[in-house]
Amino acid sequence: MSARLDAQIAFLKEADHLKAVLRASRLLDDSRFENSAEHSWHVMLYALVLVEHSAEPVDIARVLKMLLLHDIVEIDAGDAPIHGDVDHAAKAAAEEAAAERLFGLLPDDLQHEFKSLWVEFEAEETPESRFAKAIDRMPTPITNLELGGGSWIDYNVTLEQLDHRVGVPINGGAPGVWGWLRPKLESWFHRNGRA
Amino acid sequence: MSARLDAQIAFLKEADHLKAVLRASRLLDDSRFENSAEHSWHVMLYALVLVEHSAEPVDIARVLKMLLLHDIVEIDAGDAPIHGDVDHAAKAAAEEAAAERLFGLLPDDLQHEFKSLWVEFEAEETPESRFAKAIDRMPTPITNLELGGGSWIDYNVTLEQLDHRVGVPINGGAPGVWGWLRPKLESWFHRNGRA
Repeated sequence: MSARLDAQIAFLKEADHLKAVLRASRLLDDSRFENSAEHSWHVMLYALVLVEHSAEPVDIARVLKMLLLHDIVEIDAGDAPIHGDVDHAAKAAAEEAAAERLFGLLPDDLQHEFKSLWVEFEAEETPESRFAKAIDRMPTPITNLELGGGSWIDYNVTLEQLDHRVGVPINGGAPGVWGWLRPKLESWFHRNGRA
Repeated sequence: MSARLDAQIAFLKEADHLKAVLRASRLLDDSRFENSAEHSWHVMLYALVLVEHSAEPVDIARVLKMLLLHDIVEIDAGDAPIHGDVDHAAKAAAEEAAAERLFGLLPDDLQHEFKSLWVEFEAEETPESRFAKAIDRMPTPITNLELGGGSWIDYNVTLEQLDHRVGVPINGGAPGVWGWLRPKLESWFHRNGRA
């Protein structure tokens, strides 16, 4: 019991570092960039509030667990901005190694459970992972609309890119939410001469 | 549907402010104080990892939902440090008003659901809320042990205070965890002439 708790707490201490991983997205008050721990909290709240808009029935507990764990690999692999130039094979390899090291701090049963949830999230082949991926894309466009562009300006994003990288997953997991968001995005990109 | 989504997103935008509410506790690397949004993420991770140590069987989905929502009232009411001088009646009134305003941004059904979860958490009368309250107390002592005292120094905390304010809830919700933690606390306070 004591060795098991030692391992559990070692993992929880290591997880503290997610609070120092910065994303390309900002807080809604534009005071600073957002970190991946507070982002993870926020997307879980998005999931709980918006679950009725899921394209398919989902087990909310599994959705929450996936979103709770989904960015922990960034402690080792860093955050790859969605609109940045990313070597997807190198990113996948770095995240796989990170999952091995970080979840490997846990006792075997928890390591296996958490790794499986993370793999399921990344694969987007279940209703829960499709909804979780959709939700994970939601807060940044909402913040960028509020901040006059935010990371869209930094990364010189077009409406076409947004439709592809953000629209496809949101529409797949929560089509009603995309139907609500898309006209606002189109309007912003047209007004700002970016579409 | 559109008015409902407008209300849901208005709440989720307002919730962003939890990332600017600072706690008395620090990050484990001692770089800065922790905010209540990243704290909320971390305690949910503690709950998922440590649920086997709950004193009673719990529904982990309800525990995660409670911890996801538990600090949102701090957006209006602020964080009351556990070892600070707190007017408990004034704090309860401020948090009640905050819950009315903040959850009141949501459609009625969600407002009722979230308010009920928050009231249940605060009342500590169910297995889920007792475990969630125990978990909420865990990270700060673990961080303070690592940092040579942390907020215990700032607030001149004694082992007796810690046994009362931290030990009682942790022992109530997760006695095995308290059995693991208590000797480490006792040793630190004795070594540092504070018990």
